[in-house]
Amino acid sequence: MLRTHTCGELRKNHVGQTVILSGWVQGIRDKGSLLWIDLRDRYGITQITIETEHTKADHVTLARSLGREYVIRVKGKVVERYSSNDKILTGEIEIHPEHLELLNASVTPPFTIEDDTDGGDDLRMKYRYLDLRRNPVRKNLELRHRMAIETRNYLDKKLFLEVETPVLIKSTPEGARDFVVPSRMNKGEFYALPQSPQTFKQLLMVGGFDRYYQIVKCFRDEDLRADRQPEFTQIDCEMAFVEQEDILNTFEGLIKHLFNRVMNIDIGTLPRMTYQHAMKYYGNDKPDIRFEMTFIELNDWVKNKGFKVFDEAQLVLGICVQGAASYTRKQLDELTEFVKRPQLGASGLVYARFQDDGVIKSSVDKFFSPEELQKWAQAMQAQPGDLMLILAGETHKTRKAMSELRLEMGTRLGLRNKNTFACHWVVDFPLVEWNEETKRWHAMHHPFTSPKPEDVSLLECAPEKVRANAYDLVINGVEVGGGSIRIAKKDIQAKMFDLLGFSREEAEKQFGFLMQAFEYGAPPHGGIAFGFDRLCALFGGADVIRDFIAFPKNNSGRDVMIDSPSSISIEQLKELGITMNPQD
Amino acid sequence: MLRTHTCGELRKNHVGQTVILSGWVQGIRDKGSLLWIDLRDRYGITQITIETEHTKADHVTLARSLGREYVIRVKGKVVERYSSNDKILTGEIEIHPEHLELLNASVTPPFTIEDDTDGGDDLRMKYRYLDLRRNPVRKNLELRHRMAIETRNYLDKKLFLEVETPVLIKSTPEGARDFVVPSRMNKGEFYALPQSPQTFKQLLMVGGFDRYYQIVKCFRDEDLRADRQPEFTQIDCEMAFVEQEDILNTFEGLIKHLFNRVMNIDIGTLPRMTYQHAMKYYGNDKPDIRFEMTFIELNDWVKNKGFKVFDEAQLVLGICVQGAASYTRKQLDELTEFVKRPQLGASGLVYARFQDDGVIKSSVDKFFSPEELQKWAQAMQAQPGDLMLILAGETHKTRKAMSELRLEMGTRLGLRNKNTFACHWVVDFPLVEWNEETKRWHAMHHPFTSPKPEDVSLLECAPEKVRANAYDLVINGVEVGGGSIRIAKKDIQAKMFDLLGFSREEAEKQFGFLMQAFEYGAPPHGGIAFGFDRLCALFGGADVIRDFIAFPKNNSGRDVMIDSPSSISIEQLKELGITMNPQD
Repeated sequence: MLRTHTCGELRKNHVGQTVILSGWVQGIRDKGSLLWIDLRDRYGITQITIETEHTKADHVTLARSLGREYVIRVKGKVVERYSSNDKILTGEIEIHPEHLELLNASVTPPFTIEDDTDGGDDLRMKYRYLDLRRNPVRKNLELRHRMAIETRNYLDKKLFLEVETPVLIKSTPEGARDFVVPSRMNKGEFYALPQSPQTFKQLLMVGGFDRYYQIVKCFRDEDLRADRQPEFTQIDCEMAFVEQEDILNTFEGLIKHLFNRVMNIDIGTLPRMTYQHAMKYYGNDKPDIRFEMTFIELNDWVKNKGFKVFDEAQLVLGICVQGAASYTRKQLDELTEFVKRPQLGASGLVYARFQDDGVIKSSVDKFFSPEELQKWAQAMQAQPGDLMLILAGETHKTRKAMSELRLEMGTRLGLRNKNTFACHWVVDFPLVEWNEETKRWHAMHHPFTSPKPEDVSLLECAPEKVRANAYDLVINGVEVGGGSIRIAKKDIQAKMFDLLGFSREEAEKQFGFLMQAFEYGAPPHGGIAFGFDRLCALFGGADVIRDFIAFPKNNSGRDVMIDSPSSISIEQLKELGITMNPQD
Repeated sequence: MLRTHTCGELRKNHVGQTVILSGWVQGIRDKGSLLWIDLRDRYGITQITIETEHTKADHVTLARSLGREYVIRVKGKVVERYSSNDKILTGEIEIHPEHLELLNASVTPPFTIEDDTDGGDDLRMKYRYLDLRRNPVRKNLELRHRMAIETRNYLDKKLFLEVETPVLIKSTPEGARDFVVPSRMNKGEFYALPQSPQTFKQLLMVGGFDRYYQIVKCFRDEDLRADRQPEFTQIDCEMAFVEQEDILNTFEGLIKHLFNRVMNIDIGTLPRMTYQHAMKYYGNDKPDIRFEMTFIELNDWVKNKGFKVFDEAQLVLGICVQGAASYTRKQLDELTEFVKRPQLGASGLVYARFQDDGVIKSSVDKFFSPEELQKWAQAMQAQPGDLMLILAGETHKTRKAMSELRLEMGTRLGLRNKNTFACHWVVDFPLVEWNEETKRWHAMHHPFTSPKPEDVSLLECAPEKVRANAYDLVINGVEVGGGSIRIAKKDIQAKMFDLLGFSREEAEKQFGFLMQAFEYGAPPHGGIAFGFDRLCALFGGADVIRDFIAFPKNNSGRDVMIDSPSSISIEQLKELGITMNPQD
């Protein structure tokens, strides 16, 4: 037997028992007459204490030959420690070994297996199996396991069925790029890996399955931005005979359950915010509502005072940053540089400090009187000690820039604590948005998203005003889930395809089998999908999803541990009937 | 709201309530003054009763226009039926509708949505979304869901962590053919889809994860035999710091848990059988032990009596088929034809009927005296009324043929009831087997399987005698799971590679990253994998796994519903840098 207990298990009540432990050598201290080994496994660390004079010589020799990460098996008695160590769970006891056995040696690891390691990212990825031995990485994956189990338990109780949908499916030109798989048995043809099980889950609804979910791998062959993975995991869900309200309630329940069970946090009822509200007050369809600092539209207060920037602006927007009146000139210059970066593209930043003495000092004092500045303060509910920041310009661009500035100020003021969670729904998304490049309406969610029944009449005359039965779940300013009620009726779907500029033939070619299925009595249905990697990272208080994936790929889509992708043999290529072109 | 209850939910205690149901029209009976609709959803069928004279004219018109599989919403009162229908769960009540609404029409389905459908296999696959509406198919997938949930619950309680391993991995020439995925970002290179997460689960053990599982899709690009799928699902498990005994106990627990929770069956302790025993007494490494009929070796009783077939045979094998002495000449001829089929290749079949009057009549009466035949009966523990069947020839071939004959007799005698479950372990598999084609030793399980420590000394002199720490779980003659203790020590692994004829370079190229990982303190470990599709089919009492997969592929690897695989665009091919060769 290799162990009777784990290295995290023994307590005072085990004292006197003979036990067997196995694990890795975390460290050794040798004081001559006494020698201590910290033995580690997934569950903790237990101290092995060897009194060299009272121990067999070959065991002492073995103990002295051990290095970090050697694997050993120890049989011995559990003894109470003279002075206990409350930093570890087993700190009350130690093992006095009768028998010591080397299970496997280890060469010196390329970085230390400790919570704060000396391994850089590249090294950690190459030796991921060693990185996985570190507590922080292991805890992330334990959290992920717990999240998955609790998701399944909740949905199972709500009568959802987990159904596996195929991984080898059909390529569709819509959306992001597919990974494809050449078929040997059907030469010249390809499978595609799913970007999501969207069509299959809708087919399951047509098939009467009524409540479906799956924790499922999805694939996108995109140029990888930071923290994107070519394969990622979704909690994918769909329900039939439901309206938007049913879906929001069901999955609000899931999120509350996860916070409750996994984090022991009651997040209360989730607020709902329309897309329009989110854009107007946060300039963002996934606002971080851990802090207020909402936008105030200042056009009525600032126009026609001779300040050209404001006079010519479509929108003048302000935020009130509480307690930041003490910001120095240097700090304000930094913020100006921040909003002038090309990504934000603001032409400048106007500020007004509401001093503790009640005087307001602004960067535009020559255009605005103290009384006018006091009116600004009133509009922005600013108090002495607050800083008012103002941007002006074209509506959409100004909102976007102000959103970034708001988040930056939230970060600077410590209002975005990773262990505080603010969750809410954003609803009433527009059905379509105009794409300037293609000069076409594009579906904001996807072509099967249902317009709100009361807006259907606008489909032809004012498509931009049509609201969709679409919703996103946002946590701490991150969109962790999104979905929609689907179109179940043929005539609405036809109108939607017309609007998106699909010909009947194109629609038939791309979505034919789904459209055909809808002929046979499709129930009203809708669904949602959550980004599981992201959700786990959020729960874990981390920004980066990579450490919540056991074997992630790097930003070039490579697994540097196994060195993949890689070349394959000529025979394999021949069997598949494909030739590689010389590099262009 | 689309429904307050499901169509399987209403009982007598709901009488008087106003409810809303939605579902599919299963059938309509129109008797003029009364009209009944059977409304169906995933949960059951509820009868809607319309008294045409007391119902709004437009509702009656709508009801009369409905066809099979139309989707409707009904609001109405729950009323007790005059005479209840105990064939359905809601048989005590019916709904008298106040409001009837058409949610979606349906064209006529290509087959009837009933337990025994008129749809052939091809039609059912093409319209799988309609097939899924049928009770038997839905129940299979509900069983699969339940199996998955209970598997996870059991393993979670045993501290296993579900860890997702990557789907885009590296191609290895070992084993079956890989599906490959061309990489666009790394042109000329390919990912491969995993045939199993074998190397990753071993890396997780090196990473200290200690107890891993995953219910995971695997992929094999094989020429598909009947009932094989290019993508299939495994319950994949691995444990560290264990010996074979720990693994057998843990997963015997899983199987008992599944039978207990899903089927409400206590299967008791699983018998264990060595590979050698299985071959000697059943001629098969996955014997069906729902019935006895074990082999009796008759060499000592039948040799040197002048019957050349027996005299020249390496092995003479008998089985005693209880109560089959009444088999007619025609039936015995059928059995003879059965064993002479090329797949079995026996030269003939000897039989001996033990008549009720005590006389034994055999097909070889001229070579064997009545006394000698009585001795056969004694050896085979035959009683009056039994039939003795005897095959002779080369050992391996004779065992194989007799195994098939035994199974055939079991089937004919009704001893292989699909709702009876006989589970057992087969252990002590040989480590390697000689391959006549390649003139090399091949690993029976895989190259990382550990020999039994007491047999290691035989590795060089008598490899065929080395037993592996490898085991299979067999249910009703089907191998549903298999695994092994892995080699964790470098020197043994090197010996194994030598034996299998791998050069150091080949081993390094194919398994380099795993070998490298083993340098850093690999713990003793082992694992098992279960064929989840097959396990579900067995639990469901079915032979075919296809009906336990929501969207299966056919024997050419095609999904006929979505028509995949299919051609992809020139642009896609170009981006991937590949050209298709003209058909060879």
